[in-house]
Amino acid sequence: MNRLFPALCAALCTILCTPTAVRAQQEPLDAAASDPARTGYMQGFPPPDARRIRVRDGSFFRFPALRYSVVHMRSFLPTVNVARNNRTPPALFEYALDAGIDTVTFLPAGQREAVTWRRSLDLNYTDGILVLHRGRIVYERYLGALTEEGVHAVMSVTKSLTGTLAALLAAEGVLDPAERVSHYLPQLAGSGFGDATVREVMDMTTSIRFSEDYRDPEAEVWAYGEAGNPLLEHPAGTPQGYYDYLRTIRRAGRHGNVFGYRTVNADLLGWIVATVSGRSVAELLEERIWSRLGMEQDGYYQVDALGTPFAGGGFNAALRDLGRFGEMIRLGGRWRGERILPPEAVEEIRSGGDRAAFARSEYGRALPGWSYRDMWWVTHNARGAFMARGVHGQAIYIDPAAEMVIVRLASHPEADNRAIDPTTLPAFEAVAGYLLARSGGRP
Amino acid sequence: MNRLFPALCAALCTILCTPTAVRAQQEPLDAAASDPARTGYMQGFPPPDARRIRVRDGSFFRFPALRYSVVHMRSFLPTVNVARNNRTPPALFEYALDAGIDTVTFLPAGQREAVTWRRSLDLNYTDGILVLHRGRIVYERYLGALTEEGVHAVMSVTKSLTGTLAALLAAEGVLDPAERVSHYLPQLAGSGFGDATVREVMDMTTSIRFSEDYRDPEAEVWAYGEAGNPLLEHPAGTPQGYYDYLRTIRRAGRHGNVFGYRTVNADLLGWIVATVSGRSVAELLEERIWSRLGMEQDGYYQVDALGTPFAGGGFNAALRDLGRFGEMIRLGGRWRGERILPPEAVEEIRSGGDRAAFARSEYGRALPGWSYRDMWWVTHNARGAFMARGVHGQAIYIDPAAEMVIVRLASHPEADNRAIDPTTLPAFEAVAGYLLARSGGRP
Repeated sequence: MNRLFPALCAALCTILCTPTAVRAQQEPLDAAASDPARTGYMQGFPPPDARRIRVRDGSFFRFPALRYSVVHMRSFLPTVNVARNNRTPPALFEYALDAGIDTVTFLPAGQREAVTWRRSLDLNYTDGILVLHRGRIVYERYLGALTEEGVHAVMSVTKSLTGTLAALLAAEGVLDPAERVSHYLPQLAGSGFGDATVREVMDMTTSIRFSEDYRDPEAEVWAYGEAGNPLLEHPAGTPQGYYDYLRTIRRAGRHGNVFGYRTVNADLLGWIVATVSGRSVAELLEERIWSRLGMEQDGYYQVDALGTPFAGGGFNAALRDLGRFGEMIRLGGRWRGERILPPEAVEEIRSGGDRAAFARSEYGRALPGWSYRDMWWVTHNARGAFMARGVHGQAIYIDPAAEMVIVRLASHPEADNRAIDPTTLPAFEAVAGYLLARSGGRP
Repeated sequence: MNRLFPALCAALCTILCTPTAVRAQQEPLDAAASDPARTGYMQGFPPPDARRIRVRDGSFFRFPALRYSVVHMRSFLPTVNVARNNRTPPALFEYALDAGIDTVTFLPAGQREAVTWRRSLDLNYTDGILVLHRGRIVYERYLGALTEEGVHAVMSVTKSLTGTLAALLAAEGVLDPAERVSHYLPQLAGSGFGDATVREVMDMTTSIRFSEDYRDPEAEVWAYGEAGNPLLEHPAGTPQGYYDYLRTIRRAGRHGNVFGYRTVNADLLGWIVATVSGRSVAELLEERIWSRLGMEQDGYYQVDALGTPFAGGGFNAALRDLGRFGEMIRLGGRWRGERILPPEAVEEIRSGGDRAAFARSEYGRALPGWSYRDMWWVTHNARGAFMARGVHGQAIYIDPAAEMVIVRLASHPEADNRAIDPTTLPAFEAVAGYLLARSGGRP
């Protein structure tokens, strides 16, 4: 069993480890050498032994096999669909491609040599990247195993979708963030979450005994991954899925004081959303958002053995469709003349959370001045940028002042985005600056 | 392990047992009482213990839970997509609904009392039924857990899709049915399939040692189901998937003499199709057929641990989309002005196979005068009807003389269609007669 855990939990929990813990002992293959077209994973009928990827032996989440798996999660795990509207053709983007973006340079954090945008794509093991400026596509590229028609695991970007659904229900008055968790889920009254407020769950300032430290074999994250893994047997008396597991979590200290990035908060929020709406997060996302933005592809969620969508990290979608979602958020909840989200919901996300609670967290140093609100990361930089982030390089980055949305899908050898941020955040800011300058600095 | 096998193999092999073997000891719930809306399976966040369905304990393929599972296979098992063309809206059917069909009566085989068409839907545990006449929808109904937007497991109807793809490649000269299996798959030279011709595989007249008798714990079907099951661990030295298993099959007698309905032939044919085309059956079905008929929904295949689509029984699709496929076959391979299949391929299917070989088989008595060709069942009745059949009541029934196509999706408590045929085949014939009479008998 122990052999299974590292990979399964990486897949099922998508939690940020510290960079040093996950850094490979030897230099990993570079982007070109690890491209699935080159490595040949899962090619052939059947693929040769050395090129097989499996869930059960953990190989599906191990770099470089990961570069194949991230665009084929459905062929490894049970899923539920999040459908586009098949009755109408997609709402296409206008194109205004700008080749100049490739030559935009930036200084990676902590380094002395400037790097071009184009080079950063390889450094970041980018599978797909889209830059929208004022709603038009100015840059779009598919690398690795992703294609226009493909979908990619978005990992913890999923949390931002869950948070957005919660913010939507809160703005509609269906969900009260000031209520305690036990109000909506009486079965959690005795758990560590029971007396936390929904707001504390939405902003991950709950204080719970739950370690996501992969170096610790006793960390709760292992049991959590096991509970949510539909490929494992769950003996009677052990948690049968995500929800069962959440009941076992105990409190650590006082809620509301420190930002504590724990995936279980997102699954709990998904449970609350499902309970108050009568729909799973997959059903609600389809009904309220995915079927209404002129999407090109269906999305899908991984599920546990009871069919519960993995609200903490199990969503998969196409690059341009994530762009549609990001653009709708940038536009304050509107999309092509339709209101998708109440403006208050988006305003709440953009304005951010408790910066002091964030500063006190383990992220305070890596992301100074940031905050976390409704499961979005808010930079509080001069242009008001905020983002959704997922391990191995997944990102939706929204820069309101530059009228820019970037979606990046990637399969970086390191899970922790703090290892990828140095060649990511300055790159995104540089392109935002380039686009602002190009349009005469007019916001 | 033994507890898992019955349900898993039913799912993974979809093989016909003898009716007496599978007939429940006590009377099963009727259609209304077993409706998932009534039984409440998998409802709630999380579903209560008594209403949970799982793959691992076999409950997902057990009646009445089966009535929920057949429309949610993707949430239980890994899959690959078969995409519609998302760039265009669906090619809608014209409607010419005929309420008179509900009151068409027929005499169930071996019974003395006539039954109405409407009543037969409940007797057959119908989840969805569509009747096309001259390309227009004259009857359409959703019952059980299926909806217009849902997809349903088609079980062994999948084999007819595999056979159609093989017939297509044969008509295009890419595949030679007269060649031996070992010509395309040298790795099978030492197996029982090696010296069979592709034609014998397409028509299931291979003679192999492979029992699909569920009453026999030593039957090869158990090992086959285990090999194809992505939820089980496959120790080194055991088959890792469908293809690996096919290499272990031994010959029984002379090929070509007797029709022997064995699912492994369909998976072997899928392997041959993949090898000569360079595409899995899922990719080829999408490219050549599913993306070209104006489908409304994506379809999908269950896969083994290596991502191999289950060509013998793993396809899932929407009711009207199966109608589009059936109508294209009825029209000799044409669909709305486009040629999808060469006319020879469809003509070959319609004209049927070796009736003597069929008569000598275990099906000779239940389906007298029938034959099996390219993995389709050919009635050789006066109107030239032929059909695709899958366990628990799945059917695409094409009556060329009546210009009629019927698609039925169902979740009958009994797997074996010979138990369902008495309330099915006479019903289909009666509606064909009704439609013929309505249109003045003009063919």
